[in-house]
Amino acid sequence: MAAVLKAFRSGHLSLYGIRSLHCKPTRILCQSPCKSSYQRRLFTNKNLIVELDSSTGLAVIQMKKPPVNSLSLEFLTEFAISLEKLEMDRECRGVVITSSVPKIFSAGLDINEMYGKTPEHTGEFWRAVQEIWLKLYGSNLVTIAAINGMSPAGGCLLAMTCDYRIMADNPKYAIGLNETKLGIVAPFWFKDTMINTIGRRATEYSLQLGIMYSASEALENGLVDQLVAQDKIMPTALSVMSEWLAIPDHARQITKSMMRKPTLDRLLANRESDIQAFVNFITKDSIQKSLQLYLEMLKQRKS
Amino acid sequence: MAAVLKAFRSGHLSLYGIRSLHCKPTRILCQSPCKSSYQRRLFTNKNLIVELDSSTGLAVIQMKKPPVNSLSLEFLTEFAISLEKLEMDRECRGVVITSSVPKIFSAGLDINEMYGKTPEHTGEFWRAVQEIWLKLYGSNLVTIAAINGMSPAGGCLLAMTCDYRIMADNPKYAIGLNETKLGIVAPFWFKDTMINTIGRRATEYSLQLGIMYSASEALENGLVDQLVAQDKIMPTALSVMSEWLAIPDHARQITKSMMRKPTLDRLLANRESDIQAFVNFITKDSIQKSLQLYLEMLKQRKS
Amino acid sequence: MAAVLKAFRSGHLSLYGIRSLHCKPTRILCQSPCKSSYQRRLFTNKNLIVELDSSTGLAVIQMKKPPVNSLSLEFLTEFAISLEKLEMDRECRGVVITSSVPKIFSAGLDINEMYGKTPEHTGEFWRAVQEIWLKLYGSNLVTIAAINGMSPAGGCLLAMTCDYRIMADNPKYAIGLNETKLGIVAPFWFKDTMINTIGRRATEYSLQLGIMYSASEALENGLVDQLVAQDKIMPTALSVMSEWLAIPDHARQITKSMMRKPTLDRLLANRESDIQAFVNFITKDSIQKSLQLYLEMLKQRKS
Repeated sequence: MAAVLKAFRSGHLSLYGIRSLHCKPTRILCQSPCKSSYQRRLFTNKNLIVELDSSTGLAVIQMKKPPVNSLSLEFLTEFAISLEKLEMDRECRGVVITSSVPKIFSAGLDINEMYGKTPEHTGEFWRAVQEIWLKLYGSNLVTIAAINGMSPAGGCLLAMTCDYRIMADNPKYAIGLNETKLGIVAPFWFKDTMINTIGRRATEYSLQLGIMYSASEALENGLVDQLVAQDKIMPTALSVMSEWLAIPDHARQITKSMMRKPTLDRLLANRESDIQAFVNFITKDSIQKSLQLYLEMLKQRKS
Repeated sequence: MAAVLKAFRSGHLSLYGIRSLHCKPTRILCQSPCKSSYQRRLFTNKNLIVELDSSTGLAVIQMKKPPVNSLSLEFLTEFAISLEKLEMDRECRGVVITSSVPKIFSAGLDINEMYGKTPEHTGEFWRAVQEIWLKLYGSNLVTIAAINGMSPAGGCLLAMTCDYRIMADNPKYAIGLNETKLGIVAPFWFKDTMINTIGRRATEYSLQLGIMYSASEALENGLVDQLVAQDKIMPTALSVMSEWLAIPDHARQITKSMMRKPTLDRLLANRESDIQAFVNFITKDSIQKSLQLYLEMLKQRKS
Repeated sequence: MAAVLKAFRSGHLSLYGIRSLHCKPTRILCQSPCKSSYQRRLFTNKNLIVELDSSTGLAVIQMKKPPVNSLSLEFLTEFAISLEKLEMDRECRGVVITSSVPKIFSAGLDINEMYGKTPEHTGEFWRAVQEIWLKLYGSNLVTIAAINGMSPAGGCLLAMTCDYRIMADNPKYAIGLNETKLGIVAPFWFKDTMINTIGRRATEYSLQLGIMYSASEALENGLVDQLVAQDKIMPTALSVMSEWLAIPDHARQITKSMMRKPTLDRLLANRESDIQAFVNFITKDSIQKSLQLYLEMLKQRKS
């Protein structure tokens, strides 16, 4: 609970703020008079803080795995279970995904899960990466990414699965699929997600060069939808969410599915071969060597 | 005839203007010396004014079904027959689609055709909607939308089928596929047409939120190609048309077909199942209830 | 050799310049101490100057077929052989394609190969056009187009196959697929390449009207990636190339293939029918008549 309280104090998360925001008569979220905080439900995991305000239907998932919210197998499993819970909860209509770690949204896949591991482990890890993408990209909920820090590789993928992306207007933050810079390759469904977000030419260019876009560049090429000051990111996410929740759920969900189903189906039809391809690639000596060098570089940076 | 004369007087339509425009020696449209008005042919229907100037090969279709040019079964049938006539007419090479109803291009599908009707009627109506889309999106003619008013839902679809869209630069006019706002869903071929016009991400965003774009926003995101002052909309359409008619018909037609055939084929291959899906959806109690509320709201607005 | 020396003197090509550029300690291209010019290899053909600097891995292909670098069967065959050599050369990692003919990148397909020729010859020619596209669009090398002049039709296609396009910022130069203006039609794989470069709507519009874009328009719609002054075009190409070569080859190549394979496969699966369609179309009396008129017009212009 300490972490949660700290988050509230730090202003990272303020469901009280949300409620007061939506109690204005012009807001549509608050369908009944705003009640006290017993309506707020909290599921804390080791790596995530999940809160659902059943009066508004809005959940917030905060990633809290310092130092960089790396997507480990454990993290991904917790994330998938949390999403499943929210998806099944009839009171939940939308979710904001953000980070409680300063300056980092998520650094992406945990390289420790790919280096020096058995093919079985690596395969299990990759299945979990697929699973989180399938769940987020195919979610019936309104999903908004509140990108309050760096967001390379898998962090960028998480953001791109959402319906809307708000990024902190900070020149130090960047976002992109930078896999080629590490000598690895984004799989076809990362690529498909990026094409669906910024178009084919920008994707071809970005993926080949592994480009990390500054916040303002990301806005310009459509990788994010909106920039706001760091301290306005959650209020803005909640305000945008209220616009999305004004649309009848069933019509919005059918429309979203119509847009995304072909992309989802492509991975579903090729899931095992995609795992096999990943395992074969990542366990190559040359790739393991690259990952080792990269991990050593990270360690040196820390010390 | 009174309506037509009024339209001429109001400047909505001026085929004399067209002719004089194209009689300049640098223009290519006027292949023979410009003759008197007997070359102008007129097909007036209950809901449309169709005029073809055989000296220029240019037809103008004016929608005249007050108050909002709603696309009823009768309207769609007349429209399809008129298009068929022009398509078959060897003297016709291009058509401008516009409205003679002030402030409205078209309000889209007539909700009265979907509310409280038999499944048979609803199915027949939907087949007519498919038909007008197939005819317009697959037309061999150069098609230009002169959007001189509001253009939601089916009105936006009509505009998107054209080769080029000119909109009156009026902040009160808006255009978009706003179906989800009414709790209904644009079918896959509306979606495909929008993707082909403004791209996938903008479509996903627009369709989910049912966004109506102002004229200037529509220009910015590519939903229309050009904005001009209201009184310049027909002269501009005719001037743009002359550029398109400068291209040899057969090369332009093969190119257009190459671009659009896969999208057309998708509906052709799924026409019956699309009708069935529409009928099943629209005759649901919950949807009928939504439509009823919407119709009552419209009635109250009038009175 | 005189032509080559002239090119060096004129500043069109300066591998010495490249080398000194990359000898700076911050550059990654120069993996061994820069050596003298014996590392530069030269393959001169009738229509091309090909130079490979094995110390940097960078090749430059200069098209030198005055007056307009038209893509004749002979030219295409030489081009394909040169590319094949570079592709097989383990020391070559990237290629810049440019022109040594003033004011012209390439005027596109040689119409003399299509006019008054046997179906056999026309078919052989078309197979060579397919081949150069397959080789360039599917190249494992980094490919950069240094567009230092007019680039209509097939010239635009060459440029679009590259990974990156730099154009001289000269208002007299233009680029585009203008086939319909001549009464002919760009085949589906020209269209696919353009869609992959500038998107579907811009392609539909450009192809139907056969639009030639000025350098600044081409930058705006994404048909080229960068404009620079004429005399900066090669230094810029080399500087951009160094960014691309900083990415590990295997990761970049797999990524490029993932993006482009479906488009390449479409022609590979339809190669014979595409040749047949081209031969049938181009040998039509009406099309031959158009080509004749066009060739006569070109002759009159010269005299």
